[in-house]
Amino acid sequence: MEVIKETAEMQALAAELIKEGKSIGFVPTMGYLHEGHLSLLQQARQQNDKVILSIFVNPLQFGPDEDLDAYPRDEQRDLTIAEENGVDIVFLPVEETMYPHPLSLKLSVVNRADVLCGRSRPGHFDGVVTILAKLFNLCRPDRVYFGMKDAQQVAVVDALIEDFNFPVELKSVSTVREKDGLAKSSRNVNLSALEREEAPFIQQALQKGRMLAEEGENDIDVIVKETMKFIESKTHGKIDYVELLSYPELEPVDKIDRQVILAAAVQFQHARLIDNVVFDETGAISKG
Amino acid sequence: MEVIKETAEMQALAAELIKEGKSIGFVPTMGYLHEGHLSLLQQARQQNDKVILSIFVNPLQFGPDEDLDAYPRDEQRDLTIAEENGVDIVFLPVEETMYPHPLSLKLSVVNRADVLCGRSRPGHFDGVVTILAKLFNLCRPDRVYFGMKDAQQVAVVDALIEDFNFPVELKSVSTVREKDGLAKSSRNVNLSALEREEAPFIQQALQKGRMLAEEGENDIDVIVKETMKFIESKTHGKIDYVELLSYPELEPVDKIDRQVILAAAVQFQHARLIDNVVFDETGAISKG
Repeated sequence: MEVIKETAEMQALAAELIKEGKSIGFVPTMGYLHEGHLSLLQQARQQNDKVILSIFVNPLQFGPDEDLDAYPRDEQRDLTIAEENGVDIVFLPVEETMYPHPLSLKLSVVNRADVLCGRSRPGHFDGVVTILAKLFNLCRPDRVYFGMKDAQQVAVVDALIEDFNFPVELKSVSTVREKDGLAKSSRNVNLSALEREEAPFIQQALQKGRMLAEEGENDIDVIVKETMKFIESKTHGKIDYVELLSYPELEPVDKIDRQVILAAAVQFQHARLIDNVVFDETGAISKG
Repeated sequence: MEVIKETAEMQALAAELIKEGKSIGFVPTMGYLHEGHLSLLQQARQQNDKVILSIFVNPLQFGPDEDLDAYPRDEQRDLTIAEENGVDIVFLPVEETMYPHPLSLKLSVVNRADVLCGRSRPGHFDGVVTILAKLFNLCRPDRVYFGMKDAQQVAVVDALIEDFNFPVELKSVSTVREKDGLAKSSRNVNLSALEREEAPFIQQALQKGRMLAEEGENDIDVIVKETMKFIESKTHGKIDYVELLSYPELEPVDKIDRQVILAAAVQFQHARLIDNVVFDETGAISKG
């Protein structure tokens, strides 16, 4: 496994791989790898000749009130995990390498950003697409892998690739779940014992909402309200949002006549959990 | 010579060329080719295995008061010229192909745009970098060619490539001039006979300004004022601007201690002419 820190070196190696006809699978991360990342790496490993993992805690996607310095880091552990999971190249730049001087251009997300988690994190997705545009040009992947747990991120990356014709195929990977249905997350350890028992009801509530659509319910408000009611009745968490939007456009819908996402964010005492389900006009799960 | 209209086909062909180890030189244009373009094609031909010419009148870089429909077009003539000048591939998309739906992201130029010609064309360079990002991803060039006549455009493209790590080398090509020094431009035909005689004094004025620097003059205001005075005394044109800025950063400078541009725009009765000279701290011409 090669560990690369410089942009020029990364770009040169990617160019070499492309000329050799190797397909490149790319998993961009902020490190502190967990099982969600492993499922991305696994799929990248299956579908490509070479797997590039990037580890970079991107300051541009942190808001002024978000603690960049407190973001967990464990480089040695990450490298061990990468090696064990068949990564060929780890791209591990420092901030000065990725942002050597202030940017002259600004890339902003004008649609798909101001809903769901994006509403409370203004500028977050601008930072995400900026670093991804840079990483795409440095690592030049054929396929890039993201988890459907962050469905909004997948939608925004879809727009990035589509709007700017990046020669990259977006692969969204199903959310990894505990046996009881709770989406795996590094935040789950911050749940109390009781909260941990309640947390799986978020996914159950979303499935209940989806099933209403499957049974023919076409009133968005009813579906959202029933989903909220279920979460409220089964957990002590405070609902941040439950939203039903078109997917991946993330626009409000009057009725379910296309692919939609039903997504929730619930604040527990020391952990904010998010989850979602994506389904089509028949109510059948289509992603995630 | 191949003529390609679809984005997917262009992207597939570029990928094929890259895998074959062919270097790609790219000349993006809005068509209506003139001698300036030919010098770009010529250099691209010399330095690359394959030359791609794109012809696309990009609506995004026209302001609301600028007449997109009146922009001159002559596809058949352009294709003949392309063929005669050794172009391998012409990429000739229509608007619906390049912008099939409204963009979800917005790319803006925050530095380098609000000076020189950019000041009177708000949003113009946003449109330029957006279409270029798309074209870079579709044509995937090793080298891209722009004329130094539009020095601000070169500076903005430099920022695009630098900020987003596009794997493209920017080649700026010297302005093609008439024997008397007038920069060649399709707008020159709109000059009256007298104006045509006066127009070469723009470049002479810029060179005079540069020579002041060469002789040790370090007061920016003096250089700009002398340049303006010379243009005013020698032509009937109305000066739109004469500016001296760092290059390619296009920032104001206190003194000439790095590479700078001295640029002018002069409005004649039916033609607005621009020209520039780029020189280093010794006053020696370094570009253009």
